[in-house]
Amino acid sequence: MNPPSEIYLDYAAATPVDPRVQAAMEPYFSSRFFNPSSPYAPALQVRREYEAAKARLAHTFGTKADELVMTAGATESINLAFYAVDGHVITSAIEHPAVLEVAKTKPSYTLVQPNEKGIVAAESVKNALQPDTQLVSIQLANNELGTVQPLREIAAVIAGEKQARAAAGNMTPLLFHTDASQGFGQLDVHVARLGVDMLTLNGGKMYGPKGVGLLWTKPAVTLQPLIVGGGQERGIRSGTENVAGTVGFAVAAEIAAKQSKTECRRLEKLRDTLQKAILDEFPSAVVSGHPKKRLAGHLHISFPKIDGERLLFMLEAKSVFVATGSACAANKGLRSHVLTAIGMNPEVADGSLRITLGRHTTEEDIKKAAIEIIAAVGVEYTRTGYLV
Amino acid sequence: MNPPSEIYLDYAAATPVDPRVQAAMEPYFSSRFFNPSSPYAPALQVRREYEAAKARLAHTFGTKADELVMTAGATESINLAFYAVDGHVITSAIEHPAVLEVAKTKPSYTLVQPNEKGIVAAESVKNALQPDTQLVSIQLANNELGTVQPLREIAAVIAGEKQARAAAGNMTPLLFHTDASQGFGQLDVHVARLGVDMLTLNGGKMYGPKGVGLLWTKPAVTLQPLIVGGGQERGIRSGTENVAGTVGFAVAAEIAAKQSKTECRRLEKLRDTLQKAILDEFPSAVVSGHPKKRLAGHLHISFPKIDGERLLFMLEAKSVFVATGSACAANKGLRSHVLTAIGMNPEVADGSLRITLGRHTTEEDIKKAAIEIIAAVGVEYTRTGYLV
Repeated sequence: MNPPSEIYLDYAAATPVDPRVQAAMEPYFSSRFFNPSSPYAPALQVRREYEAAKARLAHTFGTKADELVMTAGATESINLAFYAVDGHVITSAIEHPAVLEVAKTKPSYTLVQPNEKGIVAAESVKNALQPDTQLVSIQLANNELGTVQPLREIAAVIAGEKQARAAAGNMTPLLFHTDASQGFGQLDVHVARLGVDMLTLNGGKMYGPKGVGLLWTKPAVTLQPLIVGGGQERGIRSGTENVAGTVGFAVAAEIAAKQSKTECRRLEKLRDTLQKAILDEFPSAVVSGHPKKRLAGHLHISFPKIDGERLLFMLEAKSVFVATGSACAANKGLRSHVLTAIGMNPEVADGSLRITLGRHTTEEDIKKAAIEIIAAVGVEYTRTGYLV
Repeated sequence: MNPPSEIYLDYAAATPVDPRVQAAMEPYFSSRFFNPSSPYAPALQVRREYEAAKARLAHTFGTKADELVMTAGATESINLAFYAVDGHVITSAIEHPAVLEVAKTKPSYTLVQPNEKGIVAAESVKNALQPDTQLVSIQLANNELGTVQPLREIAAVIAGEKQARAAAGNMTPLLFHTDASQGFGQLDVHVARLGVDMLTLNGGKMYGPKGVGLLWTKPAVTLQPLIVGGGQERGIRSGTENVAGTVGFAVAAEIAAKQSKTECRRLEKLRDTLQKAILDEFPSAVVSGHPKKRLAGHLHISFPKIDGERLLFMLEAKSVFVATGSACAANKGLRSHVLTAIGMNPEVADGSLRITLGRHTTEEDIKKAAIEIIAAVGVEYTRTGYLV
């Protein structure tokens, strides 16, 4: 993927396309470029292959092809999910900006605060419910901390609310959506087990192509099209189908789902090695997120009183690529809304690194990364004169 | 592209990705997969390459990178253009379904009727203008007939209306959008010469990747985001940038623009050869669209009293792939709204073929296609007993 000297540890921001995914996409650029809505045999064959790819994709998280709407990415999927409702919505304060921004377009919304580990408690969601709440949207795993949310418990709260509403004659619908962009391939993602009504996935976060996403909904959910036109995707999302992207997404999802358990164990071991090496050297460093309910490849670590951005650039000079926060927020030079929400002291928050491991991360990478991170932090503590 | 025996004559429905485009995209799947919003050097380099691709793309039609919003295709671009206004809109009855459907979501709209050649006269647009009209959207070229619309004349009408409004103290803004999805690479597409305020292009119709489009607007136009989130594309269209797709789109546009004139002459000659061969055999066949103001690669031809779909399948059996209408409409088994709008007798309309030539069409293809089309039509006329 990269020159051997480069150590990429920002898999939560972007993943390289798996060579098997790329190979699967290629025919749809060249010999199978046909418009799947054309009526002659080779185009009909492309239509069948498109539908088959959707079916395989759907199967990886326990659903069916005709319950998917293919989109241009997670952001569009999230916008589409929220477009289905026009009342009060609930989400958490630590969601991706796509969720936070679309929530603001609704008549009213409540942001549930996470606890200091970044967990959004089911009880907190329960307390935020109003008689007119139409949608609850909670991420599967947080993109900065890696914290995995208790979706099943939240689903139980929502089921309880639905029962209570039915008993009270309140006909307001209530939907449960999850942005599962982070975590697919590291967690068990199965809609029945999660208990959700809608789920967003992103091809570009699971070694598939960027610019392809999906929104799954239970058959009972009625979506409103955000983009109208030729009537593709059952009229919910018009535009010529991105066949290459969808086929690539399906292959990526199958690979990710298949190796999920072994990869999870592998990443956890590597992550724990890195975490221990750093903490052994700097016991004052703060590891954030839940110690156990956390994505295997995620390490969010803060070095009090030093500047995370400086660290990032020192590491970059050594060809070690990490993040300070999510790519979107970091790009704007803002302090992470996630760290603010978990109540982290700004002095600690500003010295944060988000280190995310992935499929190409090796033991050798982790050894080298540990050396470089420890060296950089050491230089900064020496330079600033703070005690370690 | 295809096995040599296959003759693809449906370039208006889909174009294969040019190998140069595919080669340009590949690095962004693998070694340059970085999120362009990440802060380390290789990601910043990807950001620069993304912006450079937008600049090259913009340059092909006389605009600048920061005037483009990258989207997932023409349908999204069109929806985004219409989302900028909330008053009366005018479009033509022969637009792509994306335009017709989004027009219906507006408070009110007027469909201008074309003449029998499929030309939307500037005078007709003028007559449809109301004091509260906010948007006029007319396609560059019709996707079924290939008819090229008099955008400059329409632009002059709109400029006149703006002056009249200013004089009358009417502050209602008036925008002119064109869906230029069909025709790029065959026509002069330069926004200043066309006189438009907004322009939609589609990568998938110009030998670029599917799932990538753009909306250009004059700097003075204020768009409203249809999809909110991380704030990409100046906040107008959130979602991680499709770098591979945009780079591919740019290369495709550059190739198309560069060879536009020679390709146009080449296609016109081939198209005219085919048209003459068919008309020599079947003088009653009806060629639609304007005889001169027509895309060079387009031949819309109707055989009265016989069934276009039967012809299509007979030709398919001979590996000649043509369309009866646009892919979207044909897929639903509906009679073309374009042919209805130009007042074509249903008996003639139902015997229509849309034959569209493209970059890989050879003289040999056209000779063979002429033989197969003449044979198929002959069989049908013999079978049905109608006189030729």
